[in-house]
Amino acid sequence: MRWTENFIPTLRERPVDAEVASHILMLRAGLVRKLSAGVYSYLPLGWRALEKVARIVRQEMDRAGALETLLPIIQPVELWEETGRVKEYGDNLLKAVDRSGKVNVLGPTHEEVITDLARNHISSYRQLPINFYQVQVKFRDETRPRFGVIRSREFLMKDAYSFNADQESLDETYQEMCEAYRRVFTRVGLKFVVVEADPGAIGGAVNHEFVVPTETGEDVIVSCPACGYAADVERAGAAGPESPQEETPAPLTRVATPGMTTIGEVSAFLNVAPDRLVKTLVYLADGKAVLALVRGDHELNEVKLARVLGAATVTMADPETIARVTGAPVGFAGPVGLTAPIVADPCVMALRNAVAGANAADAHVVNVNPGRDFTPSQVADIRTARQGDPCPHCRKPLAVSHGTVVGHVYQLGTKYSAKMKASFLDEGGVARPFVMGCYGIGISRTLAAVVETNHDDHGIIFPVTIAPYQVHLTSLNTDDPEVVATAERLSRELEAAGLEVLYDDRDASPGVKFNDADLVGIPVRLTVGRRALQRGEVEVKLRREGESRRVAVGQAAGCVAEVVSRLQDELAPHSSGPVA
Amino acid sequence: MRWTENFIPTLRERPVDAEVASHILMLRAGLVRKLSAGVYSYLPLGWRALEKVARIVRQEMDRAGALETLLPIIQPVELWEETGRVKEYGDNLLKAVDRSGKVNVLGPTHEEVITDLARNHISSYRQLPINFYQVQVKFRDETRPRFGVIRSREFLMKDAYSFNADQESLDETYQEMCEAYRRVFTRVGLKFVVVEADPGAIGGAVNHEFVVPTETGEDVIVSCPACGYAADVERAGAAGPESPQEETPAPLTRVATPGMTTIGEVSAFLNVAPDRLVKTLVYLADGKAVLALVRGDHELNEVKLARVLGAATVTMADPETIARVTGAPVGFAGPVGLTAPIVADPCVMALRNAVAGANAADAHVVNVNPGRDFTPSQVADIRTARQGDPCPHCRKPLAVSHGTVVGHVYQLGTKYSAKMKASFLDEGGVARPFVMGCYGIGISRTLAAVVETNHDDHGIIFPVTIAPYQVHLTSLNTDDPEVVATAERLSRELEAAGLEVLYDDRDASPGVKFNDADLVGIPVRLTVGRRALQRGEVEVKLRREGESRRVAVGQAAGCVAEVVSRLQDELAPHSSGPVA
Repeated sequence: MRWTENFIPTLRERPVDAEVASHILMLRAGLVRKLSAGVYSYLPLGWRALEKVARIVRQEMDRAGALETLLPIIQPVELWEETGRVKEYGDNLLKAVDRSGKVNVLGPTHEEVITDLARNHISSYRQLPINFYQVQVKFRDETRPRFGVIRSREFLMKDAYSFNADQESLDETYQEMCEAYRRVFTRVGLKFVVVEADPGAIGGAVNHEFVVPTETGEDVIVSCPACGYAADVERAGAAGPESPQEETPAPLTRVATPGMTTIGEVSAFLNVAPDRLVKTLVYLADGKAVLALVRGDHELNEVKLARVLGAATVTMADPETIARVTGAPVGFAGPVGLTAPIVADPCVMALRNAVAGANAADAHVVNVNPGRDFTPSQVADIRTARQGDPCPHCRKPLAVSHGTVVGHVYQLGTKYSAKMKASFLDEGGVARPFVMGCYGIGISRTLAAVVETNHDDHGIIFPVTIAPYQVHLTSLNTDDPEVVATAERLSRELEAAGLEVLYDDRDASPGVKFNDADLVGIPVRLTVGRRALQRGEVEVKLRREGESRRVAVGQAAGCVAEVVSRLQDELAPHSSGPVA
Repeated sequence: MRWTENFIPTLRERPVDAEVASHILMLRAGLVRKLSAGVYSYLPLGWRALEKVARIVRQEMDRAGALETLLPIIQPVELWEETGRVKEYGDNLLKAVDRSGKVNVLGPTHEEVITDLARNHISSYRQLPINFYQVQVKFRDETRPRFGVIRSREFLMKDAYSFNADQESLDETYQEMCEAYRRVFTRVGLKFVVVEADPGAIGGAVNHEFVVPTETGEDVIVSCPACGYAADVERAGAAGPESPQEETPAPLTRVATPGMTTIGEVSAFLNVAPDRLVKTLVYLADGKAVLALVRGDHELNEVKLARVLGAATVTMADPETIARVTGAPVGFAGPVGLTAPIVADPCVMALRNAVAGANAADAHVVNVNPGRDFTPSQVADIRTARQGDPCPHCRKPLAVSHGTVVGHVYQLGTKYSAKMKASFLDEGGVARPFVMGCYGIGISRTLAAVVETNHDDHGIIFPVTIAPYQVHLTSLNTDDPEVVATAERLSRELEAAGLEVLYDDRDASPGVKFNDADLVGIPVRLTVGRRALQRGEVEVKLRREGESRRVAVGQAAGCVAEVVSRLQDELAPHSSGPVA
């Protein structure tokens, strides 16, 4: 394919609204263009790379015995009401009202549709296990779309749904899918970790994320270098101290703290370290007020709090609610003497003679002792784990890093099948709800993660498996008929050998051509220039390496084919053990 | 692929809400299932066939030099307001309001998005011509979805958009795309005709439909067996008489026609043939009243009327409007003495001493003579051509037939580029609007058209090119270890030879297996049964033929491969001449 017959609008400058490398480079290399917030068009190079990711995903799904389908984007809202997910998804759900006034959900995921299919057509254990998948456009009305196609409102996903007769069968399918995911991400050239995660609005008991470590990733991973424990920060256990502080309880005393409303201010004013303070936060859990206590130097984790409370939504209370619950303005809440339910983190319970708000303006209390001065209704891990915290498994220090989630697998159990009355007859003729799993890969996000982790200052460095083309052929000196004739011939030879060639036939300077080649990042480069050609040679170079080497024109096509094949071999997956 | 590991929910009975063969058979063979009105899930077999249609379309688009992209489904309504198409599409446009209150169109087509891309990134004639395409899910909020995936609300389409510097270049691209379409439809096994058509809400001067003749098709085609003229009924010229009737005009006379409001009643009551009557219809064209006159035996064509008037919408007037415009109740309208604008069909203008309504209750006028008694503001072809009407080109009798439109190509000219200010600099440095074309193929509808025209009483007869699998391997006598071992071995052999095999390994009766094989319609059948196997033979049969033949087991794989290859050759396209 000639560059002049393609459409590759490369940009020299960094686009103004792009922050992360993948977003910048996908725009600069002409892979995508933004249509509106979080909505992107894939241009020819971007589409080719995206399609190659999808193809690899399909191959691995087929290999794992999953059956490809195509499920509708618009789905009757009634199906979503059966499972209660209209409420769970809330404003993230994009909807279209049709001419008859019916509300349609634009599918962010397809559990309801596939469970509906199963309840209509799968009646016997003999039809199980079965695993359906599709590659389909999905929608999520993000509050704040960003990072290009990483957090977008319209995106391409692979989603799979397994129906199993029992937990044991689900475990097997789950492991097979995890193995398929390992193969997919290895083949596309990603380094990834598998972590325990929060199930969010999908639900279920067990779930794992496949996370690509990146400096700018939005997802926070907590891992233990010592024992290998790894989890999403929303799931990661934040261990409490092994024992309470050893200190004799002193009498509870009220102190004046005029205008001191933050941990920092109170700590400085009273000359008490933040880790001796109780941070009291007023939340509304599904609309009901609750106090959440974490240590002054810790951060509350809202996802953990919601999980602990079994609440669909938790939101910080407004000042009016805080005043009503605590009798004081914002900044002076504390657990002593209040009637609202209290959830306390174990680290708070280990404090002795701590400081807390006095539930009165401009006042705190010191020498607060949990158990003596207040009794929480629930003690649970509700804080965000920090770098250096003890590992919940081995108590060695935890590491915190960032990454991008590219895959997420869930053991749903009977969450959907029970609500939707989707059952089969087991061997004994007894009706049982399907035991389900679901398995997602963000196809567009995977492409972005590859770019995010495969680039240098000059541009993308595509893994050969998903590069828009395998070979970038450049003719320098397009005024020299021999250079042009040689390049044309090589292009035909390479394509005849089954290689995908992007042939830069532009009448442009070597600088422009090399810059663009670096930017679009095709892995193998073949350059035809006058000087080398006078000695019967052309240049072969890998995008990821600085050095090029000269080969005889007659051997160029063979050499390039060999290099492409070697690069492919590097990304061949090897089998590995179970995940969970 | 084993039947027992697939998901093929065949149905014995005809589904209640399915009328046409393709709808019935796609449901019965387990290709699709309905989720809601006009919205279908593609099950594994259906998806495979659909994907094969899409693959052939992609191959031919690539071959024609079009560049694949993927454009967003959700599109800002503002883009559609630039071209005025929010109004043109009306209620057919499905919309989603997002959390910020912004209105998004769910793309039924992508002219605006691609023209926006072109105006941002194509600035010079040197970048032209260029042709983008995509295969994407589309939406159209049909008033009355029906016929399964033929007229659905969510469907898979290939749409392409060309940007050319001038009309000559557009003509070339248009011919290339028509040729690509011929190759596509030939390869998928369709017989089709190419007809002139109405551009509808897409617009432009020249356009052609690729129509598959079917008895139950919703689209009506008018063609001339003598000269080869062919057009959609909404575009087909309905010629007027060569000369007016020869009759001396008699004096205009009012007659009583108590309660006679239809052509039939008036004709019988006055004993005048319907072709001597003037049918006067009151319409609202973009809200403005207009009288449309056709001969009593003719049908008005609303699409033609709208085109003649340049109106976005034409709707029949309500009784109040009719009373206001004509001064009479419904059934007595006529052209004499009214001030509203009149559009008259040429056949009306050729009448002498005709009958028309008197614009008064229970009265008509006879001896109406156009020109003398009324003068239309416009004379234009506004009637629907009928079987036997003279061809507008050669005046030989026209034939009328039905069909399903599977492809539609348009010369858009500058309709979109002018409105959206999308221009390039020509060789002289002058800014000119792009000259555009667009080219659509209904992928899901093409699959349905193939089924509609390739079946018998027992089921589908898939062309090998888009069959979900090429070979249907059936083992009879699954209690016989040798039969099973032979079938298993043949399945492996065939798959190793690169063939796609659906292996019916069910423990079911031969009758059930053969019925299902007939229903799903895989083109080549290989059957392993005890009796033939005792003589070392298996049976090879084409789905489309009644007879099977026996071949030695050792030669079976080779024989099947040969048959598949022969079937493929039958559908290889040959080049043909220009369309327009």
